[in-house]
Amino acid sequence: MMKVMESAEGDEGERGRKQDVVGFRRRLRKVLMLVPVSKTLLTAVLQNHKVICQLSRGMRLVQFQTPYLKGPHLGLEEKDGGGVINLNAFDPSLPKTMREFLEQGETALSVAKRALESKQPILKRSEVTFLSPITQPDKVVCVGMNYVDHCKEQNVPVPTEPIIFSKFGSSIVGPYDDIVLPSKSKEVDWEVELAFVIGKKGKHIKATDAMAHVAGFTVAHDVSARDWQMRRNGKQWLLGKTFDTFCPLGPALVTKDGVADPHNLKICCRVNGEVVQSSSTKQMVFKTEDLIAWVSQFVTLYPGDVFLTGTPPGVGVFRKPPVFLKKGDEVQCEIEGLGTIINKVV
Amino acid sequence: MMKVMESAEGDEGERGRKQDVVGFRRRLRKVLMLVPVSKTLLTAVLQNHKVICQLSRGMRLVQFQTPYLKGPHLGLEEKDGGGVINLNAFDPSLPKTMREFLEQGETALSVAKRALESKQPILKRSEVTFLSPITQPDKVVCVGMNYVDHCKEQNVPVPTEPIIFSKFGSSIVGPYDDIVLPSKSKEVDWEVELAFVIGKKGKHIKATDAMAHVAGFTVAHDVSARDWQMRRNGKQWLLGKTFDTFCPLGPALVTKDGVADPHNLKICCRVNGEVVQSSSTKQMVFKTEDLIAWVSQFVTLYPGDVFLTGTPPGVGVFRKPPVFLKKGDEVQCEIEGLGTIINKVV
Repeated sequence: MMKVMESAEGDEGERGRKQDVVGFRRRLRKVLMLVPVSKTLLTAVLQNHKVICQLSRGMRLVQFQTPYLKGPHLGLEEKDGGGVINLNAFDPSLPKTMREFLEQGETALSVAKRALESKQPILKRSEVTFLSPITQPDKVVCVGMNYVDHCKEQNVPVPTEPIIFSKFGSSIVGPYDDIVLPSKSKEVDWEVELAFVIGKKGKHIKATDAMAHVAGFTVAHDVSARDWQMRRNGKQWLLGKTFDTFCPLGPALVTKDGVADPHNLKICCRVNGEVVQSSSTKQMVFKTEDLIAWVSQFVTLYPGDVFLTGTPPGVGVFRKPPVFLKKGDEVQCEIEGLGTIINKVV
Repeated sequence: MMKVMESAEGDEGERGRKQDVVGFRRRLRKVLMLVPVSKTLLTAVLQNHKVICQLSRGMRLVQFQTPYLKGPHLGLEEKDGGGVINLNAFDPSLPKTMREFLEQGETALSVAKRALESKQPILKRSEVTFLSPITQPDKVVCVGMNYVDHCKEQNVPVPTEPIIFSKFGSSIVGPYDDIVLPSKSKEVDWEVELAFVIGKKGKHIKATDAMAHVAGFTVAHDVSARDWQMRRNGKQWLLGKTFDTFCPLGPALVTKDGVADPHNLKICCRVNGEVVQSSSTKQMVFKTEDLIAWVSQFVTLYPGDVFLTGTPPGVGVFRKPPVFLKKGDEVQCEIEGLGTIINKVV
């Protein structure tokens, strides 16, 4: 069993391993239907298998605070929507911010794994305030026009090279925080995006080595003021993308061993309950590996750097007539297996 | 005398105070020419005045390391080109990075002032490696086309609003570090710029209050890959501006009380000793106060945020024929009263 866990932690051959687990489960089900087994044996086999699945399921790392634990603390969401294990209580030598945690690499991750297995007392979800799983990164790297179906929506050719822009770290807010509508814009729009976070420093990283530099995945909302992005500021997108609160992230950083195929996930955005974007990350033009290889030709990537990988079709600005966010709206961004962030517009 | 020092430390009325000092000096000279005074009295008066000037001269804050003091340490350059007082040795409770130092505000600054007055043992310049005076800021805010004479050079109208773009913090290097010519660009160009660093958090800051949010000024080199800035990446400037090593800064963060008028400083760039840019910061379209007021409408400014305020004419790309940097070149960026950064192209 340990062998399975260790393999699942490795960077290479992870997808193959996942497929093995799925195949094993399928074969197991067939065998159980064909052969007569005692209930005890059946339970034992299934529990054993459950442990294997659990071990290869990855972790849901969060940053949180409570009224009595001020400032960022590191935690583990027990499951999507579940309680939170306080990692800093489990091991006070762990750093309190995700960036520092990721800088410690495998050492810190293995402590978190032990905490998950330890059945630590769990803080109720109602007791904690979720912060963004990553704050104060060196970079928030964003990718423009990176969904085939989003390019079609705009009648523009699919880019042959990634188009890279950025937000400032100061735009990041937590998964349930408010989006503050700035008085300077009349055209604030939604964009659900798959985000990944760098776990290992690198420069000139090959696409084939890229997944070794990923810590995990999370849900992002690339809130965009279209007037400032498209028509003002000399057509440099930065200002329209980087107002305070324009980068909700979370709820958890799901470690990569918990995501079988990041490029085959349902991705969806709802405004006031109505589905406005619905696609799959398989529509991404440049995948995680391509983006890491591309951007690391220009800059050194550091633990904590966040990539927002582009949005599918259905944004407000390309509707006829265009639709924009207004005070009181509630935006839900959801990605299969990663979770949902819910942000009210105020 | 203390009163003069305290006034000079205040945020308001600082420029008025500076003019008072200049006026005092002028009046003093006249008086000394008209009245017969003893040599002793003359010396006493002049020394008294020297102390006043010294106290209002501001500080030259640096980050440095030595072979035996690894990692960033905070220091004070005794004078431009002088030795370095180790602030962390003077008071071990001070943080070791400029960002944290600035977050502590006046408390930390007053410790530094005491260190300057204490005649601490000074590390020889040859013993220390100067790092950028600020590293890992939340933002590197850059301004495009912000010199009247630079706009004329390009035959473009003077902007009516600042044009804001950015670099990643990872592009920052020290004042004497190498600029690494990336193989991905054939058009790497120079741009000397006045930079200022935020000392106090703020949002929606009025221009009249803006100087209270400035910690000080330094020299920046906004190295620019013109091919990537102007023609690639969907014309988003980011990538062309943010290659590793494309943001040399330093040598010191000169506190604002050491800069009588930041918008009346000679600014100059030399490549291999030849003057290629020579202008004055009075050519700036949007001054420090305007830029803080503008950008803080979009984002919260934090201590350590760096602004690069645009470049004067004389860049390589607008020469006929265009000239770009090549391996072995040495670029010197100099601003009156702030110092010179010298970066070799490798």
